[in-house]
Amino acid sequence: MRKVLLWAAGNAWLRDRVPRTAAARRAVRRFMPGERMEDALDAAEAFGRQGISTLFTRLGENLDALADADAVAEHYRGLIDAIAERGLDGHVSIKLTQLGLDLDVERAFEHTRALADHAVGRGGMLWIDMESSPYVETTVALYERLLTVQPRAGICLQAYLRRTPGDIQRLLPHAPAIRLVKGAYAEPVDLAVQTRTEVDAAYAACALVMLQARAAGTPIEVGLGTHDVRLVELIEHHAAAIGLDRTAFEVQMLYGIRSDEQRRLAAAGYRVRDLIAYGDAWYPWYLRRLAERPANLAFAFRQLVPF
Amino acid sequence: MRKVLLWAAGNAWLRDRVPRTAAARRAVRRFMPGERMEDALDAAEAFGRQGISTLFTRLGENLDALADADAVAEHYRGLIDAIAERGLDGHVSIKLTQLGLDLDVERAFEHTRALADHAVGRGGMLWIDMESSPYVETTVALYERLLTVQPRAGICLQAYLRRTPGDIQRLLPHAPAIRLVKGAYAEPVDLAVQTRTEVDAAYAACALVMLQARAAGTPIEVGLGTHDVRLVELIEHHAAAIGLDRTAFEVQMLYGIRSDEQRRLAAAGYRVRDLIAYGDAWYPWYLRRLAERPANLAFAFRQLVPF
Repeated sequence: MRKVLLWAAGNAWLRDRVPRTAAARRAVRRFMPGERMEDALDAAEAFGRQGISTLFTRLGENLDALADADAVAEHYRGLIDAIAERGLDGHVSIKLTQLGLDLDVERAFEHTRALADHAVGRGGMLWIDMESSPYVETTVALYERLLTVQPRAGICLQAYLRRTPGDIQRLLPHAPAIRLVKGAYAEPVDLAVQTRTEVDAAYAACALVMLQARAAGTPIEVGLGTHDVRLVELIEHHAAAIGLDRTAFEVQMLYGIRSDEQRRLAAAGYRVRDLIAYGDAWYPWYLRRLAERPANLAFAFRQLVPF
Repeated sequence: MRKVLLWAAGNAWLRDRVPRTAAARRAVRRFMPGERMEDALDAAEAFGRQGISTLFTRLGENLDALADADAVAEHYRGLIDAIAERGLDGHVSIKLTQLGLDLDVERAFEHTRALADHAVGRGGMLWIDMESSPYVETTVALYERLLTVQPRAGICLQAYLRRTPGDIQRLLPHAPAIRLVKGAYAEPVDLAVQTRTEVDAAYAACALVMLQARAAGTPIEVGLGTHDVRLVELIEHHAAAIGLDRTAFEVQMLYGIRSDEQRRLAAAGYRVRDLIAYGDAWYPWYLRRLAERPANLAFAFRQLVPF
């Protein structure tokens, strides 16, 4: 089922048709407050009142034309301004392919650097999201380069990838901010561990290595980008033994997933950041969310039966 | 099924009757070369020729009389001599309750210290096995004390226990040798994580914390006491990223379980130690082995159908 969903996520015919159906629009509302930036900003204000900060992203991946990348960058510049004007604790997450990585690496880097500088200048921060395995090396290398000119920026790493322990060590000397996720693409066995128990073990190992570096004085910001609350609590428990409390990392969950847990964790003194996506290009992103969690899928089935 | 087996492991009526049946004796031979010390030593010689070292233990747990503890200690003294006389790379694992912990803590400590000294004097090493949760604090405290008089000795810690991350940190300043196992007793949820994926994540976290300490120069010997080869390989992979190779830890498996993997790992340059049990008090130990692994259980069913 997971493989079918990930296949469907990459299928152009479906991508052109499914989002137009009313049932699909209804289903995706579980994971998005709305398609407009203002919907996302309004939702973030409500989260702020509950002590939950926000990571915004506009959906959309690979582009066909460089002019589109410039438009995306301009859009994010406006988003950063809007976050600051509303006084939100809001960070911004971009995908490099949204900024033209497939067309012109240098232009993508310049957009990223400019957005990272702008975000920091307005009291926020830019995070580089991670994409499927062919993009990982380029993304890590670009992030390393970014840190030499803008030291406050983050990257997402995927625990299921076999290269990730090495990427963590490679980034540690650069005072990185790392958002650790389990990983949601269909990757081959030589690149990624495959079973739930291996992915969880890899996740715990990556998290503890980063937190132990932090406990030893290495400047690193750790975001645990997972909805697996048991795993978060297990990591917190191990972190406590090495002298770190629950504020040593941030818990980052998607809008609409385990909302009750997000509020509970925030009330219990965890730093919680809700990732709010918006925009109309939600189809592949939505299917990856379904592939991630059986609970999401069960919900979707009830919504999607019509088509 | 796991709970039934663990209940049966503690049942006195069964313990008195099951081991006398021929079917049970046949079944347990999968996990023991024989009941006599000589059977274990002969098996160890064969392992030695394959580059696999040995950890010996004589089965038997809680005792009724202190004289029995003295006899057990005397037996282990003879085992240590026999290992040395045969020129084996053999360590010895004892349970503190075998040495009278329930009856006289000081006597148990003195036996342990004397055996640890004797083992080191003859070129070997003593490991303290871990028992169910009521014994953990006493065992860790006794091990700490042992290290002040005999710096070369080991202990077993159980990854599923919530206290274990704290025990690791507590022991790290004492240059410990820690054999990490997943944990095989029935423990309540407030003391131990319960699901496979949580236990594996806890195991990976404990292992990486210890290996990272080792990579940072803390003197610690790490034994991975698990038959979960995928988990071993995952830990090795993460260890490699922090600059350690596969000789930074020892893989410790039980006799008769994944024998092919033990040989394969030894041939591939891992340090492998096979835990050989012997003695006639194998009943509760055997049932815990069955509870641990569905594969063991399937094998046992075929042997045990008669009763």
